[in-house]
Order: sequence, then C-alpha cells, then structure tokens
Amino acid sequence: MSPTIKLHDRHLNLLNNNNIGISKPKTELLHFKLKFRTKPIYHSDPLLSVAYNSTMHASSAHPPQSGVIKSSLIDPDGGALVDLVVPKSQRFAKALKAEALPKVRLTKIDLEWVHVVSEGWASPLRGFMREDQYLQSLHFNSLRIEDGSLVNMSLPIVLAIDDETKERIGSSNDVGLVGPDGNLVGVLNSIEIYKHNKEERIARTWGSTAPGLPYVEEVITPAGNWLIGGDLEVLDRIKYNDGLDHYRLSPQQLRKEFDRRRADAVFAFQLRNPVHNGHALLMNDTRRRLLDMGYKNPILLLHPLGGFTKPDDVPLDVRMEQHSKVLEDGVLDPETTIVGIFPSPMHYAGPTEVQWHAKARINAGANFYIVGRDPAGMGHPTEKRDLYDPDHGKKVLSMAPGLEKLNILPFRVAAYDTVEKKMAFFDPSRAKDFLFISGTKMRAYAKSGENPPDGFMCPSGWKVLVNYYESLQTEEASQQQAVLST
Amino acid sequence: MSPTIKLHDRHLNLLNNNNIGISKPKTELLHFKLKFRTKPIYHSDPLLSVAYNSTMHASSAHPPQSGVIKSSLIDPDGGALVDLVVPKSQRFAKALKAEALPKVRLTKIDLEWVHVVSEGWASPLRGFMREDQYLQSLHFNSLRIEDGSLVNMSLPIVLAIDDETKERIGSSNDVGLVGPDGNLVGVLNSIEIYKHNKEERIARTWGSTAPGLPYVEEVITPAGNWLIGGDLEVLDRIKYNDGLDHYRLSPQQLRKEFDRRRADAVFAFQLRNPVHNGHALLMNDTRRRLLDMGYKNPILLLHPLGGFTKPDDVPLDVRMEQHSKVLEDGVLDPETTIVGIFPSPMHYAGPTEVQWHAKARINAGANFYIVGRDPAGMGHPTEKRDLYDPDHGKKVLSMAPGLEKLNILPFRVAAYDTVEKKMAFFDPSRAKDFLFISGTKMRAYAKSGENPPDGFMCPSGWKVLVNYYESLQTEEASQQQAVLST
Repeated sequence: MSPTIKLHDRHLNLLNNNNIGISKPKTELLHFKLKFRTKPIYHSDPLLSVAYNSTMHASSAHPPQSGVIKSSLIDPDGGALVDLVVPKSQRFAKALKAEALPKVRLTKIDLEWVHVVSEGWASPLRGFMREDQYLQSLHFNSLRIEDGSLVNMSLPIVLAIDDETKERIGSSNDVGLVGPDGNLVGVLNSIEIYKHNKEERIARTWGSTAPGLPYVEEVITPAGNWLIGGDLEVLDRIKYNDGLDHYRLSPQQLRKEFDRRRADAVFAFQLRNPVHNGHALLMNDTRRRLLDMGYKNPILLLHPLGGFTKPDDVPLDVRMEQHSKVLEDGVLDPETTIVGIFPSPMHYAGPTEVQWHAKARINAGANFYIVGRDPAGMGHPTEKRDLYDPDHGKKVLSMAPGLEKLNILPFRVAAYDTVEKKMAFFDPSRAKDFLFISGTKMRAYAKSGENPPDGFMCPSGWKVLVNYYESLQTEEASQQQAVLST
Repeated sequence: MSPTIKLHDRHLNLLNNNNIGISKPKTELLHFKLKFRTKPIYHSDPLLSVAYNSTMHASSAHPPQSGVIKSSLIDPDGGALVDLVVPKSQRFAKALKAEALPKVRLTKIDLEWVHVVSEGWASPLRGFMREDQYLQSLHFNSLRIEDGSLVNMSLPIVLAIDDETKERIGSSNDVGLVGPDGNLVGVLNSIEIYKHNKEERIARTWGSTAPGLPYVEEVITPAGNWLIGGDLEVLDRIKYNDGLDHYRLSPQQLRKEFDRRRADAVFAFQLRNPVHNGHALLMNDTRRRLLDMGYKNPILLLHPLGGFTKPDDVPLDVRMEQHSKVLEDGVLDPETTIVGIFPSPMHYAGPTEVQWHAKARINAGANFYIVGRDPAGMGHPTEKRDLYDPDHGKKVLSMAPGLEKLNILPFRVAAYDTVEKKMAFFDPSRAKDFLFISGTKMRAYAKSGENPPDGFMCPSGWKVLVNYYESLQTEEASQQQAVLST
C-alpha cells in the first residue's frame, strides 16, 4: 500500500525555482485560492478500481465499479468520457439516415476535430459547438455544465460552412458529414447555424490578428461565413491508414492501459518536436520527483500532437520514428512510458491553447501535466518577438477555470551545458556555459548535415532527422529539375 | 410584509419573446444550470436591515448589522464594498509619505479609473491589476477570489507607464500618484511592473484590432509599454468640480439611498445617450412587471456613464440636463427613480464591456440589470457593419462567470410606431409601421433643427439637445472665422 499524499494544490511550483519542484505553494503570493482544493486525490490499485483517500482506511474503500472505463487517478471532465461512435449494430441504419440528409463536406482538419470530439478528448462536449458554447469558449475559456460547475474549454471547436451549404441545408434538423475522400463519416444532429465572425474569433483566440498565423491561414481564412453546431455521431472510429493508427490511442484506451500498468500517477508531456535530451532530462526528473513523493509507479504519457502542424515543423511520421529511437536507446524507459498520438490540430495559440492541451489530457487520465516555456507559442508572424510572453502559458494554465483538479508541473528551461557536455537545467549563475538550441537551430543543424554537440540527442534519433532533411533536399532538387525540364 | 418571491434564475427571459418578460426559464434550452441558484433572494425592510427569506419566519430574521453599509438586496462582489479613501486622520501622514515616493503622472482617464476603483465599483479589486489579475481578466473575464469562487471582471483595469517612469521608479515598492493637474491623488502600494502587450490586450478585449476603436486610440495607443499594478489608497474622494459632483453617488451612497427609500428591488439602466420615450417605455414597463411579480417598491437606478466617451457622443453635462427634464416632465417618476453618474470610462467593447457595466451595478446594490440590443456596441470602425453581433451582449451577460446572482432583464427593441404615434415595442408582424431612430439619426435631427416625430422624446428634453447642437454650430462657425482671420 503506497503512502497517501495530499497534493491538492496544482499551483505546485509556479513560484518555486526548482526544476519541476513539487512543494507547498506560496499562497501568500497567489491572489486566489482553489475552489476544489478539498477534493481528495485518490490513490488506487487501478486493476481493482478500488479508491481510497488519505482519510479512509482500506477497509472502507469504495467497491470496484464494473463496466466503467476510468482510471481512478482523475475523473474525465463532466464525470464520464464521451464516446460518439455509433454501436456496430446501429451503423447500417445510421448510415442510411445520414445518406438521406443534406451533406456537409469536411476538410482534413475538420475530420481531425471529428476524431477529437468523437473519442471524448473534449468531454463533456458532444459535437461541434452551438453558439452558446462558442461564446463561452471565446469569452470565458470554459463551459458551464449541468451541475453548475465549469469545465475548461479554451479553443472553439467549430465547423464552418459556406453560404451555399447553408442554403442546401435549409430547415433540416440534422446533416450528414462527408469526409475529404467522399465517404460518409457521421451525422450532426439538432443543428444550429450561426454567424462566423472570423475577425472576432481570431482576435479572441490568438490575441492577435496579424497575417501569417498558421491555423488562421490554413483553416479560418478560407472557411465559410457560418458555423454549424450540433450533436455528433460517427459511423466508425476515425482512421488515417498511414501506418500510425496503432499509436492513436483513445482516452478510453489510455485509461485502460494506465490501469493495466497499475499506474498510481500519470504525467503527460505534450510535444510537436523531436525529443532531445533536454526533454528527456525533465521527463526523467519528473518521474524521480514523483517517486520521491511516494508514488510507486508514475507513468509518462509521451504525447506528440498528430493533427495539423505548420509546414516547417517536423512531420508526424518522422517524429514518431524519432521517438521510437529515443525509447529503443533507453533515453526514456519503455517500461514506464506510453507513447500515443494526440489527434488534435495545432493552433499555435499559446496560453489559450495550452489549456486545451492540458484539459484533453485530463480526459485521457493524466493527473499531472508538464508545462514549459512558451507552450504552444511561436514567433510573432510580423514582428521580431515571441507572439506570447513565454511565462504567460504556465501562469494562465495555473489559474484556468476547470483545471483545478489537474496538477500543473512547470519546469525550468534545459540547455546544452558546454562544460558538462550534456543537456542540463539552465543555471543562470553560469549562463555563459550554456548553449540554447532552439527548434529552428536544431533544424538548421539537421538540414546542413552538421552534428549538434555531443549529448544533445541520442545518435539514432538524430539520424532520423538527418535522413528526413536529406530526403527533403533530394525531393526539392528533383522538383526544381522537373520545373526546369518542363 | 411583501410576499416572498423566488427569483433564482437570472436567465429570466433570454429565450422568451415578451418585452422584458420575467418568467420561468426554459432550462431545457439552456446548456447549463446555475451555480448559485440555491442562494436566497432577501426581501427586506431596508431601514432596519432586517432580512428574511422565503423559508424564514419574521421572528427568526437576522438582527440588524450596525456600521455595515449594505442594502440587503444583493451582496457586493467579494462580500464587502471596497473603500480606498484614506481616513481623514491619516491623510496628512499619507500625503507626506506619497510626496517622498517616485511619482506616476495620471491621465484624465487614469484618474477616472482611480475614482472607480477607490469607491468600490470594481470590488473586490483594491487597486490597479497586477499581472495575475490582468491575465485572468483578459483570458477568463473573471477573477478567482480567496474563497475559491469567481467574481466577474471582464475589463482589465490597468495603469500604463512609459520606460522613463519605470526607470525612475527603480526598485521602489510604492509610488505616488499625481493627477493631471499636478495634485497628489494617492499611493499605489506593493507595486508590480509587467509588460503592456498592447496588441494582445486590444485583441482579447475588443475582439478586433481594427484602427479607430475610440478607447484604444485615446488611451492605449499613446500609453507606455509597461503596466503597474498595486494596492491603491486615495487621499480624498475624487471630484470634478463641474457642477455634477452631486450626481456622482458612490456605491455606498447608492446602497444607503436604496435603503432610505425602502426599495425591495433595484433595477439598473446603463446609458450614454439621451433618454427617449422608447427607453422610458421599457424602464416603466420593467417597473410594472416587477410590481406584477409582487415587489412593492422597485426603484430604478438611471445610471448614465460619466467617464470618457467618444467625441460624437452627447457630452455628460448635456445628457444630465436632458435627463433632469425627462424627470421633471414625469416621463420617468422621480419618486421611484434615482439618477446617479457611473464614473467609468467607456470602452465600446460590446459583450466584454457589458459584463463590467453589470458587475459594477451589483456593487452599487442593483439586483436587476436591464440589457438591450448591442450593449456597449458601435459600428465597426473600418467595415460597414456592427462591430458586435447585437444579440451577443445579452447572451454573454447571461452566461458570464460571477454574475449568477444578478437578475438579467433583456428587452425587445423599441421603435417609433407611426400608427400609434408613440414609441412602442417593435412588433415584427407590422414591421412597416415602425420607424427606427438611431442615435446617429437622432443627432442628425437635432443638428438640423428638424423635430423628430411627435412622441419620440419629451419636448423639454429635446430642446436641451437642440440647444447643444446649435451651440456647437455657433462654436464651429466662430472657430472657422478665427482661422480665416489669422
């Protein structure tokens, strides 16, 4: 039986300068206290789904709940995971119904959202947002649910349609959803159509309307002037058939896996870049600290984002290969790590988006979330500065309504220590010894075939990147050749 | 003893098409329930401050609380009204202290905010926002307070300083505040200085970064690149010596006055325009409906905004004269109306700002808030459309965190009924009979000396406007004369 540890305060170490230190918060510096701090954290034998808290004896533990898929570490938002896949027995009837309805054609990224919502990453959201939900998300980054409490919901999850599609839908209550390949995907029921004010959506989501925001350019600018909300049903699980579907574990599957591994803590790490030894350092350090606190089996959820990313990010298949090398090389321990793909598209919306990244991982069963410098940030598209203050992400995350039950683990930035010849937590007292290798710099190394300093990344992982950039150059060269010869 | 009425649900009639109808909400259409719906509404004999609710007998009523200024209708946010005016006995010592500190020079509008905060309109805020509060306001439109609950706070209340002032403050913990006239106003204690990202502030507050937003052009664009937060103390009540200070009743004074008048309901009407008979219709109609519900003495708080407004709005002194004519003429009943000036500057930030307008009136003791079409809205500065969806204001208001205890009264738009020859609630079934007279159109009438249709506004009130625009034209003419003769 593991010791019972009270870890009520999710502001853990926002104000503490340890690496990812887990300590009592300096409440006198926080201008608020937590609403749900009295909620106990359950430590459990997950296989039995027996929960107890620090005030309970094992003998008075709750009986196991059969048939309910949930790891006992943290409840999904709204209390139960949303699953919008139609049971097999009803699939044919539902497809017939959908076939007869007016259709909405989905883009590739719309389909990523269908995937996200249908598996319950956005629980308790049950479809694309109607206007009431959209306005709450846009103005309050949260949704009021039935019991009066708030769940976090910082990004509007919406489906845009154009005038012609709106016309075609007419007064129909439901619409059929058709994938980019023309196949029927599902149904949106009890629809509501409302105006898509793009300027307002962009300004409130990104805090900027500068030209060049990747998601805006890719998704919003070309989209229609209407949004259509409603309750989603999908005919079958969304698959991509790209050889990576086995990594696309749903929140339900992840919760099962955490239970199978008897996790007593799950810490999630969101990423959209290759894993270097700095990342590994902080993930391993987090595990060590959780062990120090008395957890017996903390499990890392290494959770690369798999949806839309901007063109100069490393593509998903390359990243997945790189991640597998990192695990093969033992930089991360496969025994205590689960790698899955988070199917959401990337907004690059900084403090607004990091809330979504954290909230979705609650639904996947993670009760600790690691947050670094400038999460979901990028350079300002038209000015020579970061789009967001690099500290705002973790600050906003620590104060966000609906995320009170999640333990936020901020960490100090890691850099290459030129004396120790390895990635280490940056030590400002000897700043000149440290070399910062940004994503841009890393890509520049790989593109030029130059090796980064020893100890930056495991060699087999690095090779994956070099091969990718070589193949890119070969491809570019042959495209130029093709252009010249036509 | 008045009947006890349960009026828990503030969404009263958002979905109901009566004029301002007060009825049971259609909860099945609302996607959430209310958090604080179990909170009783107190009906009181205000002079005695004896409160009882529907489950209490008069004999078990709370004893009167002496020394605490609060009408029993609604609690101020955070439980107690903030009052940041230094007691007379300490004024000299505090002034001496302030004199010795580095100084921050306030603009006219900064001073309006000092006024607002010092009197508790923004309770429980006790000064200009520090970064944690600023971020919560910007991202969540609410602040987490000590007990874990949320209070609404949709506009950042911040003080900007430039690089030079920041330099001059150095490492001082406190600063002195100096008014635009050079007089010492107060002190900001335990300061925190942080970056003023204007683009982000504008985008998240207005949902637009279009050039031409009045508050942005007047206040934010010329402001410094730093914000300074801290705890405010003012040496004396803020006065303007413009002959209107007697209208500037503080939240404390208003609560006292509601009690003196034995109000059992207070309904607030925010405005920045002259009162026409359409406004009067809905205010009188609101009163009638509150009486129908069983309230014995509903009091109207006619609450014109007195801070910064855009140049083409009618100035405060003219509006106040117009309002007094409306009361003299009996269009509104002076016996059941209190006219006060709300000292806040105007943002023209639509759904974001209307929350501030409502929240501040909670602090002033109003438990009903009237909201119309496009509150705090304006035309888009660069596009031919409203900046905000005219329905978003009341929707956002009805869902805003921290406003659960306020009863929101949405109303239908009033227009001139050309058949009945009076202002009436618009009847879409005979739309062609109605004439919409916008603020712009009203000003055009007054400028040209043309009379609006009979029954649009009481003649003495209209005369005030005509005189104002005549004086403007005389002034312009003499300025042109002066330019020509130089």
